[in-house]
Amino acid sequence: MSCIFCEIAAGARAASMVWEDDCCLAFMDLHPVRAGHVLVIPRRHAVLLTDLDQDEQARVFAVAGAIRAASHDAGWGTEGANLMLNDGVAANQHIRHVHVHILPRQRGDGLKVWWAFARRMLNVFGSAGSRSGLNEQAERLRPGVAKRLTRA
Amino acid sequence: MSCIFCEIAAGARAASMVWEDDCCLAFMDLHPVRAGHVLVIPRRHAVLLTDLDQDEQARVFAVAGAIRAASHDAGWGTEGANLMLNDGVAANQHIRHVHVHILPRQRGDGLKVWWAFARRMLNVFGSAGSRSGLNEQAERLRPGVAKRLTRA
Repeated sequence: MSCIFCEIAAGARAASMVWEDDCCLAFMDLHPVRAGHVLVIPRRHAVLLTDLDQDEQARVFAVAGAIRAASHDAGWGTEGANLMLNDGVAANQHIRHVHVHILPRQRGDGLKVWWAFARRMLNVFGSAGSRSGLNEQAERLRPGVAKRLTRA
Repeated sequence: MSCIFCEIAAGARAASMVWEDDCCLAFMDLHPVRAGHVLVIPRRHAVLLTDLDQDEQARVFAVAGAIRAASHDAGWGTEGANLMLNDGVAANQHIRHVHVHILPRQRGDGLKVWWAFARRMLNVFGSAGSRSGLNEQAERLRPGVAKRLTRA
């Protein structure tokens, strides 16, 4: 099965490249939500964030952070940005190769209205958690987090 | 002006804590979109990602990655997750202290429908970029990215 991001990494498919190094690439999204929409990917084919090692994960986010900062210098009036990683089909990942979206934003852009609408709709499903419920959730997460991190 | 995330970091406001270290905290979102919704913040007050130094940025994302992985062990059927950072008021940042959302997802969860709807609406504003347009955008980004990164 072919992967279009692997094809871009191999130079076999055109992309408007923003950054390349041994670990990662960044290029303009071919279907931008708005101008300045960039994707960061690891060179190596990996479907999920957990398929990357710690160094690769760190590098993907470092490149994403640099692009977010650089977006201010690019002259298209960036006032903010959304960084988003949809990890897994269940999370609306369409291309099965890890990618972080960097989406520059401006006050008054049309996205705000739809974002707010979606959030309101999402809240139909969600609800403010009770403290005991949240504590119970935190307890279930803590061992798995602790075994993956050392104290800073 | 008070900051509720600084109050949580100071132990002056209740939170269902998932992780704490010298740099970062992670806790259950008090207004979860769904169960298992976690926020990662730096301890130090910083509004934007660019207000953090490289090490702090890296740590915030490392903690977010560990939580995303740990979410699989938590027993609530995580099949995927959205990691999202809304950086700046223009990007729908409501609490003015850097925070990364980790939102566990399942196939068939109600969110998928609304996400797809929002995406379709967003596409009313966006459009597939022309290659020359994307190349021009990439060119405007490259110098700012290159000055913020060293080759891996």
